[in-house]
Parts: sequence; structure tokens; C-alpha cells
Amino acid sequence: MDKEEKKGKPGWDKKVGAARKKPWGGRFAQGMDETVEAFTASLSFDHRLALEDIEGSRAHCRMLLKQGIIAEEEARLIQRGLEEIEEEIRSDSFPYDLSLEDIHMNIEGRLVEKVGPVGGKLHTGRSRNDQVALDMHLFVKKETLGVMERIKRLQETIFQLALEHLAVVFPGYTHLQRAQPVLLSHHLMAYFWMLQRDRERFAGTYKRADIMPLGAGALSGTSFPVDREDVARELGFARLYENSMDAVSDRDFVLEFLSSAAVLIMHLSRLSEELILWSSQEFSFIELDDAFTTGSSMMPQKKNPDVAELVRAKTGRVYGNLVSLLTVLKGLPLAYNKDMQEDKEPLFDTVDTVANVLNVFTAMMGRVTVNEKRIEQAFESDYSTATELADFLAQKGVPFREAHFVVGGLVRYCLESGKKHLGELSAHEISSFHPELASEEACRLLDYRQAVEAKKCRGGTAEAAVKFQLEKARQLLGETLI
Amino acid sequence: MDKEEKKGKPGWDKKVGAARKKPWGGRFAQGMDETVEAFTASLSFDHRLALEDIEGSRAHCRMLLKQGIIAEEEARLIQRGLEEIEEEIRSDSFPYDLSLEDIHMNIEGRLVEKVGPVGGKLHTGRSRNDQVALDMHLFVKKETLGVMERIKRLQETIFQLALEHLAVVFPGYTHLQRAQPVLLSHHLMAYFWMLQRDRERFAGTYKRADIMPLGAGALSGTSFPVDREDVARELGFARLYENSMDAVSDRDFVLEFLSSAAVLIMHLSRLSEELILWSSQEFSFIELDDAFTTGSSMMPQKKNPDVAELVRAKTGRVYGNLVSLLTVLKGLPLAYNKDMQEDKEPLFDTVDTVANVLNVFTAMMGRVTVNEKRIEQAFESDYSTATELADFLAQKGVPFREAHFVVGGLVRYCLESGKKHLGELSAHEISSFHPELASEEACRLLDYRQAVEAKKCRGGTAEAAVKFQLEKARQLLGETLI
Amino acid sequence: MDKEEKKGKPGWDKKVGAARKKPWGGRFAQGMDETVEAFTASLSFDHRLALEDIEGSRAHCRMLLKQGIIAEEEARLIQRGLEEIEEEIRSDSFPYDLSLEDIHMNIEGRLVEKVGPVGGKLHTGRSRNDQVALDMHLFVKKETLGVMERIKRLQETIFQLALEHLAVVFPGYTHLQRAQPVLLSHHLMAYFWMLQRDRERFAGTYKRADIMPLGAGALSGTSFPVDREDVARELGFARLYENSMDAVSDRDFVLEFLSSAAVLIMHLSRLSEELILWSSQEFSFIELDDAFTTGSSMMPQKKNPDVAELVRAKTGRVYGNLVSLLTVLKGLPLAYNKDMQEDKEPLFDTVDTVANVLNVFTAMMGRVTVNEKRIEQAFESDYSTATELADFLAQKGVPFREAHFVVGGLVRYCLESGKKHLGELSAHEISSFHPELASEEACRLLDYRQAVEAKKCRGGTAEAAVKFQLEKARQLLGETLI
Amino acid sequence: MDKEEKKGKPGWDKKVGAARKKPWGGRFAQGMDETVEAFTASLSFDHRLALEDIEGSRAHCRMLLKQGIIAEEEARLIQRGLEEIEEEIRSDSFPYDLSLEDIHMNIEGRLVEKVGPVGGKLHTGRSRNDQVALDMHLFVKKETLGVMERIKRLQETIFQLALEHLAVVFPGYTHLQRAQPVLLSHHLMAYFWMLQRDRERFAGTYKRADIMPLGAGALSGTSFPVDREDVARELGFARLYENSMDAVSDRDFVLEFLSSAAVLIMHLSRLSEELILWSSQEFSFIELDDAFTTGSSMMPQKKNPDVAELVRAKTGRVYGNLVSLLTVLKGLPLAYNKDMQEDKEPLFDTVDTVANVLNVFTAMMGRVTVNEKRIEQAFESDYSTATELADFLAQKGVPFREAHFVVGGLVRYCLESGKKHLGELSAHEISSFHPELASEEACRLLDYRQAVEAKKCRGGTAEAAVKFQLEKARQLLGETLI
Repeated sequence: MDKEEKKGKPGWDKKVGAARKKPWGGRFAQGMDETVEAFTASLSFDHRLALEDIEGSRAHCRMLLKQGIIAEEEARLIQRGLEEIEEEIRSDSFPYDLSLEDIHMNIEGRLVEKVGPVGGKLHTGRSRNDQVALDMHLFVKKETLGVMERIKRLQETIFQLALEHLAVVFPGYTHLQRAQPVLLSHHLMAYFWMLQRDRERFAGTYKRADIMPLGAGALSGTSFPVDREDVARELGFARLYENSMDAVSDRDFVLEFLSSAAVLIMHLSRLSEELILWSSQEFSFIELDDAFTTGSSMMPQKKNPDVAELVRAKTGRVYGNLVSLLTVLKGLPLAYNKDMQEDKEPLFDTVDTVANVLNVFTAMMGRVTVNEKRIEQAFESDYSTATELADFLAQKGVPFREAHFVVGGLVRYCLESGKKHLGELSAHEISSFHPELASEEACRLLDYRQAVEAKKCRGGTAEAAVKFQLEKARQLLGETLI
Repeated sequence: MDKEEKKGKPGWDKKVGAARKKPWGGRFAQGMDETVEAFTASLSFDHRLALEDIEGSRAHCRMLLKQGIIAEEEARLIQRGLEEIEEEIRSDSFPYDLSLEDIHMNIEGRLVEKVGPVGGKLHTGRSRNDQVALDMHLFVKKETLGVMERIKRLQETIFQLALEHLAVVFPGYTHLQRAQPVLLSHHLMAYFWMLQRDRERFAGTYKRADIMPLGAGALSGTSFPVDREDVARELGFARLYENSMDAVSDRDFVLEFLSSAAVLIMHLSRLSEELILWSSQEFSFIELDDAFTTGSSMMPQKKNPDVAELVRAKTGRVYGNLVSLLTVLKGLPLAYNKDMQEDKEPLFDTVDTVANVLNVFTAMMGRVTVNEKRIEQAFESDYSTATELADFLAQKGVPFREAHFVVGGLVRYCLESGKKHLGELSAHEISSFHPELASEEACRLLDYRQAVEAKKCRGGTAEAAVKFQLEKARQLLGETLI
Repeated sequence: MDKEEKKGKPGWDKKVGAARKKPWGGRFAQGMDETVEAFTASLSFDHRLALEDIEGSRAHCRMLLKQGIIAEEEARLIQRGLEEIEEEIRSDSFPYDLSLEDIHMNIEGRLVEKVGPVGGKLHTGRSRNDQVALDMHLFVKKETLGVMERIKRLQETIFQLALEHLAVVFPGYTHLQRAQPVLLSHHLMAYFWMLQRDRERFAGTYKRADIMPLGAGALSGTSFPVDREDVARELGFARLYENSMDAVSDRDFVLEFLSSAAVLIMHLSRLSEELILWSSQEFSFIELDDAFTTGSSMMPQKKNPDVAELVRAKTGRVYGNLVSLLTVLKGLPLAYNKDMQEDKEPLFDTVDTVANVLNVFTAMMGRVTVNEKRIEQAFESDYSTATELADFLAQKGVPFREAHFVVGGLVRYCLESGKKHLGELSAHEISSFHPELASEEACRLLDYRQAVEAKKCRGGTAEAAVKFQLEKARQLLGETLI
Repeated sequence: MDKEEKKGKPGWDKKVGAARKKPWGGRFAQGMDETVEAFTASLSFDHRLALEDIEGSRAHCRMLLKQGIIAEEEARLIQRGLEEIEEEIRSDSFPYDLSLEDIHMNIEGRLVEKVGPVGGKLHTGRSRNDQVALDMHLFVKKETLGVMERIKRLQETIFQLALEHLAVVFPGYTHLQRAQPVLLSHHLMAYFWMLQRDRERFAGTYKRADIMPLGAGALSGTSFPVDREDVARELGFARLYENSMDAVSDRDFVLEFLSSAAVLIMHLSRLSEELILWSSQEFSFIELDDAFTTGSSMMPQKKNPDVAELVRAKTGRVYGNLVSLLTVLKGLPLAYNKDMQEDKEPLFDTVDTVANVLNVFTAMMGRVTVNEKRIEQAFESDYSTATELADFLAQKGVPFREAHFVVGGLVRYCLESGKKHLGELSAHEISSFHPELASEEACRLLDYRQAVEAKKCRGGTAEAAVKFQLEKARQLLGETLI
């Protein structure tokens, strides 16, 4: 499931025809070693850019015609040929040829087969360097929109889950220790906001991928009277590269996609960790749907949160891909270097990983069963309302640090006398720690529901505050970021 | 506890007074192990947040007063105390105390020393978790503006250098092989645009750091009637965290700073590589100023481009810092975990590295000597105008692939007959490769200056196109991004 | 130049005297820019190699004398000077001088101050390149032994803890789901073996650091009649570099130290994760000593496993340091490049991190309280003996996959009928799932103690097997690896 | 070429038959979601372990028979079935079934199809956890031997190249500045020694992979009377895991393979960088064979060192894979977690990358043309014998630092008066810098051949020393490391 190229190319090898002439053979006295051919060829992965390549070529061809660089009949032939090739690719009948190195040469070679030597005119005014760059920009733009859409769907699922369990009180943790009670909906919504930032980040990535490189030639521009603004307009680009050397040697937009993906999957690794914890015997706060777990081949009682574990693990893959491309680009002189061919696999793998992870996570989160009863039982042994007492004393004028110390002593007293929650303390016991605690209000504060309700400030966990938050969230789901 | 810190900071230890009470001692039966105290303490690095901490505290205090949570006299005392502490920090006379763990407790402890127990009221309605988060946001915002300013200065320097050498023709490379002649100014300006994207990226980082966390408490908000909008306004934040758990567990903005820095230093590593190449004996295209090179303790003739090498190497440090924080955050459950304390050193180190690197690079680039004569000599053995001939044939109607093959044969002929550049070919020799080459125009095209001038399209290397580019660049230098 | 260094080291600057002549000034027309001086200087961190530098210099000096390259009186003066300098460094009274770039020049400069121009003769037949390489080798060898010793101490502590709790039955997990009961001692000993492999790995690192580079000169060897074997013998090296260019450009041994450290800290991050889980309210299997935890400034009831969390987080730092140096070395041409100066800080930071982490972990593990009662209660709701039933059926001739399916159904029956462990099933209920289960033996197998005792094979969790394992472990603790 | 699974599996999807029953379905009320099935399945990559899986199963089966756990007829049937399956796999006719999750279940499922329910008995006394671990150990052991063999072949090629060009004097660089002349053979041999350490490192990796995990069961061992020593002996393992939990959760040996590969490819990235530099127009020291370069689709004169560039770039991929697995393992509790399934792709990709890179590099290095004439010309403008003069003065009793300064001045004089090498200085000019320089010997030293010959010490670049080095190298090539 991870790699489109693996799954989508049954019989790959068989499609590869006889070797044809290299596009650059003129100055070479001898041919290429076959192992080397395989080593340097990129077709096995860059075939993924086939449709972007055709889209770019068609826009380039239209521009060549408008500028009078090619004739109307030539353009017509080329466009028809490209249409046919597109159809072959979509129907998986395109005759890939490994000896032609990459997808770009495969398409051009096929074009010449179809329309004759005029097909060679398509390459007028461009080089493989700016052509590859264009394809990569088109691909990253498309996939960035895709990932943003998928993130949004996960946000919606989390939003729904929060809405459904709006008022469930849940232990809030810091350091994996019980800290303060919160609403489960509040806890879940924390991930909504992380994902919202992820979408914003990808929107920034989109903006920096939205620059049109064609016309940069190999590195210095072209001497043909091309109209780069026209190509940009046709292909829906917001900007042009203003420097041809930058245009062919820039892979920032790929790096930025990988960085944004790294932060995204880090978020999902955190949620995965929590799902794993919560579905352990010890927590038992949720149950993952059978469809998202697996059993053990040996232990019949097992129900393993495999999906969550795998998502957590995929973090490694995405981080690794980022490191990979950062390493590739370090210290490369201008302009294009063959090293840059290694930008594709980390990108494709990340695109697939992120898409799969978001899809499966969205489905899984949509079918989580919340074990409300068990969650409630958790508060039977819990001191997490202690802060409320300290706050109460502070409000009565006791300096907070002193209030904290007083209540700390009270907790220690409970621990030593076997009381499992503060509610087991008598009013007398409580007030013996500080005179101000001799109050009904103080006792009421020990109720974990009260503790939640007290956090009324914006962004807090009181039900009203969470409703306000949900409203904000609902609005954002309606807004577009690009 | 790092030995480096321990050893390298004579004086530091002496500032540390006698151990004082922990702010959380109440429930603990026994004190902390001393090694552990050193291991968990963050003062040795987080003292860098001292001024941000005070700025945040003063805004918090003003809000507490406005909301009637503390009295006017209390607020006055606290503000005066904080002012004095700020002065102590600025004048390096603040009595740091390692036993107080971190900078926040140091400042609060000092406040209480100065103004008495009322100082404890400052912590009302906040926790160390949201307080640390606030300080980090303030710090990242400030440093992001700083790095953007420094990038701009480097852009200006590159712009000037390009302007000064506008018309110098320079070998353009791909695969480190001579590809096509370009203007040196064009080559240099490629870095201008990389840096422009860096500034844009940091502007995005700024936007996602510009969210106010205070009021999130430890994780669930606060029961005090705080006014978070007010604090945000006072401190110049554009947005509030809408979820308290997110507010205390988010370090995306730090990660994003590190990612943006990684792309930036990758760019500088590429320029460094080129400066190193160009100042080698073999290239000799530039000379670095003596002030930016070093000699050898053994070899008297050496002049080493140390600064450029070090900048290239610092790439490792910045990448490492990014990996470090990505690793820390992987799989952490909500909300705050102590792990997150490890966000600071990678950030601080990156801030310093990037600042130093940009400063030194800007100074170095401002004093590069371009060896124009030697650059011109480079074209005495060079075939890099071959593309022009191929383009010429293409314009005459020869399919580009065929034109390429013809000219490839011509280059091979030169190589085999010892002609070091295409200009050494007679018109007769040239035309023997293709009848269309029998033209004066074809011969003129072999001049590398002509080749440059032909690239007139937007973003191309012709002088007019570069002037257009410089004009665009000048405009961008005048625009603010935040 | 790092701000950290600048700010945090009051006193440091004051030790720096007036600028002196560079050791390589001859061919330079002008001096070095001050910022650059700070940027390229390494003294702020390489002062850590001071003692190794002196040790190497003394051996070099003895060899120069033996070979008749310097005179007896010269050698005597130099040795005396170096002795005094060593004393100054040990007593922290050495007058460091930042303008002298690095520790090597500082020591040599000081030597000349002390003994006059003859001090300059010490550098005869060596270069800074092989000198730095030698210091690094001595340092890595020393620190590798140090880390191996510290690992061993942690192994001993784990061994003791296992011994003390030999027979405590503990839930064994896979996927964080209850899998099969194990002995706690068995679980703990798993870490013993990881650490044993860590020691083996560091022993390999030691072997590849144990190669002597001096005599390599700047890159090509030296024309002085040095005796490299003698220096190696004096300094306790097993081998010599057989190629001078390799000798000055090799940093494999540093990388290997960092890799070994990365695996080590990964192991500790796993143990940390478990300690954090086990001391959560939900697990409550252990209690960390107060001395190794901290409280919250806001929540009086908190007891946070800060040390374990920080160790888990330090994984990021060590991974980052490894990535940092890998990045630095990528693509560097031979021989020495200034980039390689960036090998030191990642190494020093890793050495310190690993030392601190092992120290604090050993102390913490020595004072863990095992909550045996709570652990026992865990088996009150637990199906983890299900495998035993399946194995029983398999032993009766039922194909294992079928047996597994039968027992899986039985577990599902328990879940649906609210039985919290398999022991709640009546013999009748059990046998209704498979006729072979109608046996007393089958019922006995449901006891988790029986399940543990059944795993008698070598490496298994039965008490006898664990005792055998402990005996093996005890032997290994007595063996030296280098 | 990179991924065996991509190339070697034409028609993969078509081989996948109808879904069959999961091996763990008993306790589950409902089936697995189809997307999830694809997401969690590992068959698409772990089919690479097929032969190791069968090898392990056959040894396990023999042991089960010996121990009387299964009957002779049962063992015979199972062995025959496994033989047939092995044949199917080798002949690429095995009917893979994606619904069976992984290769282990595929093989077992097929076995049952072939021999009936008795096939299920093969799983007696083992779990998928120890089975997977065993397969991974067998695989890593095999591939480690493979990479060691390939490294050796590259060493031999380098050795031959050095031998062929033994006496060619070559500029030696530090900081990419001319430093001192060396022999080309000496420079090349530096890589021999790096590769020798790589082999040593992989030998260490082998040792730590050579531990037998079977018998560990899911995590706690097995209650069947297995004989683990016997299985280890049969499969050629040197040691047993002494702790079953360690056995199933250890991936150190994979990490160590990746670390060793990272250092190896770093070495190759350095050599690649040099090949790229040396085949640039500016250096022109070597020519790569046409078979290992490519041209440009646009620029007819180009001859690009694509193979060297790609190898340099593959560094990113290998580093990324290491980071990936380090990230996966961080903070995982014991014992097995699904996360660990993500160990395979980084390993497989690294195995393939390293194999391809070594193969292609060995072929390429075997056909490098050394441009001896051009190398000699390099010394026409070169000051790299300056150190010799300084050494000469030092030998005459001038303190080295002073000697260095004197010669530095001499170089500056050359630079300012346009003398391109020190040989252009008259004896008078030389002696004017220091009276001791008024000697014929001093003048002779300026010859770069003399400078090389002077480095006679062991490991130095003098021809005799290089011959000694080659002899050492030849011996090592004859020794086995495992």
C-alpha cells in the first residue's frame, strides 16, 4: 500500500521494449554500461510524473505556437500525439522503455514514434532540467492540496468525536501523571488545532511551490522567444522564477513539503501513543474497532492496536526522508547536479505515507468506542483536584506558593493514610491544614466536575469554553486556506 | 550539568547561593538527589529567556490588576521588583541559584526576596507550563525577526556584488561541467532568490509563533477570571491558543524555526562550496579577503577558505538540531512532558549559529575580489556555446534532437583534433557537419558573449534580463514581509 | 563565538591576553577580521583536549630526542615547560588566549613564553592536522573506556534489582497489550543484555580508535626521521595509520562512538518509557524514589518522573549529534578540511550526555520501589494465560492454528460474559469449547504462575531458566572486553 | 535497480488470490477493514525473507522431530512441503496472497494447502515474533558477508589503480588548496584504508547479528521442550539470546548494519566528490569512461559524471534510513511492538543501495583514465613545496615557527612579483630571505619530486613508503575478517 509504483505497475519489466538511441549520444565514442544504465535511470520511480509531464508539455506546445516558434500543423500533431499518450498512460498501456532513462524521454520518444520527427520540436526552448522542475512543481502543488484535504477530513472526524463526547470528564495528564481533570472533548480538540497549523503550514508550502520554472532551459534561460508568463497562466502558477539558475537548482519546495509532513506525522505519533495507552488493559479508556486491530498468531487473547503502532512508526520513515533530501542538497554547487534526481523517492514515499496514514487514521478515529464508565471509575483513585484547593486558598489571599505547600501536605496525608481521593477527607481533616479550608466551598471544589467547570477562560476546559472552541473550529473548517 | 557548562563557566557556580525550598515540596517526604538536581535543572541554558520571562510577567501582572485579581499596591510592588530584576539581569548582577531549577523560579524567588510574600501572587492564574511556553514564543518571535533582518543584509550584499560585476561573463555549470556561459551577476543573484524564499519561510514561521499561550495553566486553563485577549494585546500577539492543552504541548513553532534554518543553511552551504571551488588554484575565479581566510601552521604558502568551510560544516549542526527536536517530540502523549525541556538548546544553538553565519558571510561576500581576467581566460578552452549551434539548427527547422546530435559530433571532432574551443573551427569545418551551418550567423553564435546575450527571456542571463531581475530584487528589498 | 559561550563564561574572556602573532602570518598582507577570528576559533571547546595534547606532545618530544632530531637540553626544557603547563591546566590557572585560535597554539605559545624559542622545536615533524587527530584519538579511547565502565555499573544495578525480585510474576506485554506473564527479573534482565551488546559495540569502537596518526604531517608524512612505532608504543596504541592522508582525514572513530552512543541511548529511552508507564497511576507497578522525581509548581499532588523523561528526551540530542557529524563529512574531498573542526562539539556533548545519563540512571534504578501487591492485583483482570491453553491443545495433537482459534473463542466468551480472567470459567464452560480441554491439567494451566514456570527452555522466563541466565550474566560482568 | 521488490515482482497483484482466514481470528467479532489490511500488511516487502523463512522453518522442524515434539511422518511431510515451496519461490511461481499479511503466513498457508492440517504443527513452540527475528538475523548475516565481499572487490580495484600509477606525482590538497605534492597512488590508497575499516566494522556487525533468537516465543520462551542450541548449530549461529524478551525486541543488529553502511557511503561520497572535481574542465586530472557518464539532452558538449554524482547523493538515502530506524525504536516499551515492522524497508533499501553503489563504483574505478600530462602541468603554477624550505630551515636549527614565517614571506614575494612557482626564484632571491637558504640543497628541495621523496616515514608518500603500504594492503586482502 505504501508505494504506488510498486503496486501500480504490474509487469513493469515486460513493458520495456528494445533499447533506443540516447538523446545525447553525439559526442560519445562508446555506449553506456548496462549496469550504469540501470543505476542512473529514474524511470522506475519518475513515471509517476507522467501526467504532469504531459500537462506541462501541452502548455509549452501551445505557447510555442502562439509565439510562432512552431507552426500550427506541427502543434496540432504534437497535441494529438500527447493526447494519445496521456490516454495510454491512464489506461496503463504505455510502452515504457527503461533504456530511455526517464519518463520525459519515454514520452518524447513515444511522441516521435507517433507523429514523426516533428515530435522533436516539442523540446524547442526547454531542457530536461526546467522540464523536470516544472513536473515536480505541478506534482507538489497537486499533492499539497491533497494532503490538506485529507487533514481536513481528519479534523472533521475529531471534531465529531469531540462533539459526541462533549461532556465526558477525563483525566488530564502531564508527565503521564494525573494532573487535572479535563473534558475528553477538550483533550481531543487539542489535535484539531495541531492539524489546523499543519494545514496552514502546507498552505505556505503550496505558495512556495507555486512558482513556474519553465523557460530556464538547462540553466541560463533560452534564446527562443518564449512567453513564460503565458505558460504560467495556462498552468495556474502565481509566480515565475526570476532567475533561471535558481529555477533549475531549487528544491526548497520539496524540502518544505517534507518538513511540513514531518511535523504532521509527529502530531499523529502523539495521538497514536495516546490511543495505544488508552486501549491498554491498564487504562481501558477506549476500545479500537476490531477492524483496526489485529490479533496474535500465538496468543489468542490479544487485540493489538497495530494501526496506531504503525502510524507511530511511520514517523521514522518521514523523518528519514527529510534527512535524506537535506543531506543530498548540502554543499551542491549550482546549477543542476545529478544528485538532485534523489529528490523523488523521498517525496513520493512521503506523499504515499502521509496519504495512507491520514486515510486510515480518519477511518479509525471515526469508529473509536469511548468507555465512559471506565473513565469515570478512574476518578475513584485520583488527587487531581488538589490544584483547585490551592487556587481557592490563593483567592483567599494566601500567596500561591504557600497555598501549594499546604495542599501538598494534604495530599501526602492522604497517601500515607490510604485515602484514594481527596473526597475521602472529612471537612475536619481538611480544615486542620489551613483555617481558610474550613468552608463548604472548599469541599465542593474537590469534585472533579467542579474543577472542570471552573476553567471558564477562553481556551479552558469548562464545557462553555469548549463549546466556544468548537464554534471557532467549525468556522475554520469552512474556510479555505489557499 | 554538561561538563562544558560546568568547566567553561568559572564564575557561574559562584553566583549560585544556598539551596532554597523547591516550589513543589509539599507532598515529598525527602529532598532531591544533588546529581539529579543538576541533571534536571535547566538554568544553565534557560537563563537566556530571562528578559522574555520578565516581559511576560509584567503583562500578566497588569492583567491581574485590571481584572481585580490582585490589588493595586500588590501590582505596584511586583512591577517595581520586576524592574529591578530586569536591571540586575541586564547588568549581569543577578544572583542565579542553580537549586531553583530554572530561570522562572530564579526570577520569582528573587522577586519574593525583594518584595516579600506578595511576590508569590504573581504566579496566580498561571503555571510554569504556560509561562515557559509564553517565553519561548516571545523568544522565537524576536529571533525570527532578527534572522530575517540578517538575511536581508546578505541579500543586499549579494545584490551589490552582482551590480558591480553586472556584465562579467562566467562559465555556467551543471554536473560541475561547463554547460553554458552566464553572467556572474546572474549566477550570484540565484542566491538572492533562495534567500528571498528563506525570508518568506521565516515570515510563515513568525505567523505560527505569533499565538499567545498564557492562561492555559498547567494544561486545562485557569479558574481565575483572567483576560487572555488583554495579555495578547499587551505583548503584541496576533492570536490566542484556543485550546489550553495544545497551548502547553505545542512546539511546532520551534520545529518550524529549525526547519527554516535548515533550508537557509543548506543554501549557504551551496554558496560556500562554490566559494571554495572558485578560490582553488584550479578555478582561481575569485580571491577571498585575507581577513576571511587562514594559513597553515605547517605550509607557508596556504591560504585557506576557513570561513566558507566552516559555514558548510555548520550545516551539520543545524540539521542535527532539527533531528534532535523531531526525535524528542515523537510519540509524546499530552500534555506537557519534561522531555520538552530539551527544545531549548537546539533552538538556542541554531539561533546563534544562523546569526553568526549570516554575519560573517555578509562581511565576507562584501569583500570578495573577482578575478575577471582569469575568468575570461576560462573561455579559451571551453565548448559551452555548443548549445547555441544546436538551437540555431533547430530554428532553421532541424528537429532539436537531430540538431543536438550533429553538434555533439562537432564537439567530438574538436576533442579529437585538439581544438580547445569551438571558435578554432574554420567555417568550412563547421559547415561540413550540416549544410545549414554554412552561415556567418552560426559562426557568430560561437562567441560566448553572444550566447549570453541570446538568453533574453525573463529570468534569463542576457544583460537586459538580469537588469530586469535586479529591478525586481530591488523592489523586494524595500518590501516588508511581516 | 556561540552566544552561549560568550555569555555564560564570565571570567573566560578575562583570561584572554593581548593578541599575538598567528602561527601562519607570513604570506598574508593583512590581519584577520575579529568576528572571523571568533568564528573560526575552536578554543572555547577544544580546550577540553588540553591534557591529551600535552600527553601527545611529551611522547613526540621524547621521540624527537631519541631520533636525534632535537638535543637533550632542548628536550629537557620542553618537557619541563609542558609539565608546568599541565599543572596550570589542572589547577585552572592557564592563561587561555582566544586570539591563538585553538588549544594547540595556546599550549605551544605558552611553552615558548616559558622556555623561549626552543619551544618552537616541539612542532618539528608534525602538523596541526596530525596533532589534532592524535588528541582526538587519545580522547575517544579514554572516554570509550569511561562509558564502558559506566554501562557496566548500570548492568550491575539491573542485575541486583533482578536478583532481589527474582520470583515476582509480572505482566509481559507486546503491543502494550497483556501478552504472557513473565518474571519481573526476566523483564529487567532484557536490558542487561542490551547493555552487554552496547559494551561490545564500544569495544569495537575502541579498537578502531586505537590507531596512531602522528607522523602524518599535514597530509603527506614528514621528511624528518621520526619513529612512529615508538610514539605509538609510548602512548599505548595498537596500530599505526598506514597512510598519512587517511590519518588526517579520518573521523570514522568519532562517528562510530556517536553511533554506539545512539544505540545505547535508544535502549535507555525504552527503559525510561517503561519506568514512566509503570509509575503512572494506571499501572502503579513501581515507585520512583522522591530523589529522582519532581513536583509541579501548580499541582500539589504531582510526582513527576522527570529523570526518566529527560533521559528519553536526550535520545534526540544524541541522534542529532550523529546526524550532525554524518552531514559534516558527506562529500568532503581529501585531506583535511576546516569542516572537520565541527567534529568536536557533537562528540563532547555526546560524551557528557551519555556519562550523565548513565550515572543518574544507575542511581535511580538502585532505588526503585517495586509495588509487588499492585503487580499481583494486575492478574485479577487478565487473559494472558490463554496461550497456555492453546499450547496444551497443540500438545494433545490439535494443529496449533486450530487450537489458537478455539481459545480465541473462549476469550471472546469471557469478554462478552464479563469474566475478568480465565480462572473465572468453570471446567464445564472450558470443556464446552473443545473436548480435550476437559482436564484438570488444562485448568491448572490457567494459573499465571504455572504459565511462567512452563517456560523452562534456555532464555525462557521460568525461575530456573532466569537463574541460569543470571549466572551467565554474572560471568560476563567479570570478563573484560578490551 | 534500487529495489529488488520493485523489479523482481512483475505481476505481483495478479498472484494474490482470494482472502483467507486470519491466523488470529478467534476472539474477534468482526473482520478487518480492507484499507487497514493493506496498511498493516508487510508482504509487499517482507517476501524478501522467504528463503530465510524456509531455512529457519526447516531447522525448527528437524529440532521438533529430534525432541519428539512432532512425529517422523509429520516432519517428513512438512519438510517435503517446504522444499516444494522453496522451489516455487525460486522459480517465481509461488502464489502470494496479500490477505495473509506477511510472508510467514503465506508460507505456512501454502504448506497447509500442500500437506494438510499437519502443516499447522510447524508453528509449535514458536511465535511470529521469534520467527521474524530469526529471519532477520539470517538475512543480515548473509547480506553483511555480501557487502564485505563487495567492499573487498573495490579495495582490489583501488589497489590495482594505485599500483598502475604508483609514481605519478599529484597535487595534495587540504582545504581544497594545494598543500603538498603526493603520489597519486598514495592519495588513492587512503580510500583503501577507509574501506578496510568498513570491512572491520561490518565484521563487528556480523558478530552481533550472529545470535539465535528462536525459542523466545512471543516474548517469554516456550513451554515445549525445544532445543535451542541444536537450532543454532544447524543454522550456523555462534550464540543464543539468553533472554527471550530481548530476543524478540532487539533490532540492534539492523541499526548497526545501517550505521556501518552510513560510514561506508560517506567514504564513497568523498571519493565521488573527488572524481567529480578531477573530471571538471578546471582540474582535468582524470577522464571517466564514457560508459559511466551521460550527456545532456540540450548541451551537446556535456559529459556528466552522473554515476559519481548519484553515489554522492545516495548518501542521503542511507543516512535517512538510519535516522528512520533510530526514530522508530526510540521509546518503545518491551517486548515486540508493531512499530518494529518498519525495520525492513530501510534495511532492504540500504542493502540494495550499498550493493549497487559498490558494484558500479568498482566497475567505474576499474576504467578511470589518468591524465598524467595534465597532472604534471599542474605543478607549473604551484607553491606547494614551500613546506620543504621551512623544514630545511628547521633542520638547520631555526625554530619552526620562524622558518614558517620566513618562507611565508617568500611565497608572498612570488605572488606579488608574478612568479607562478617557487622554482622561478633565483638563488639570490631565495637567500635574501634567510642566509641559511643560500644553499644548493635548498634549491633542490623546491622540486616537487624531491618533496615527495623526502616523506620516507612509515605511512608517508615517498615511493618506497607507498610500496611498503601496498605490501601491507596486499596482505590484508588475503586475510579473512570473520
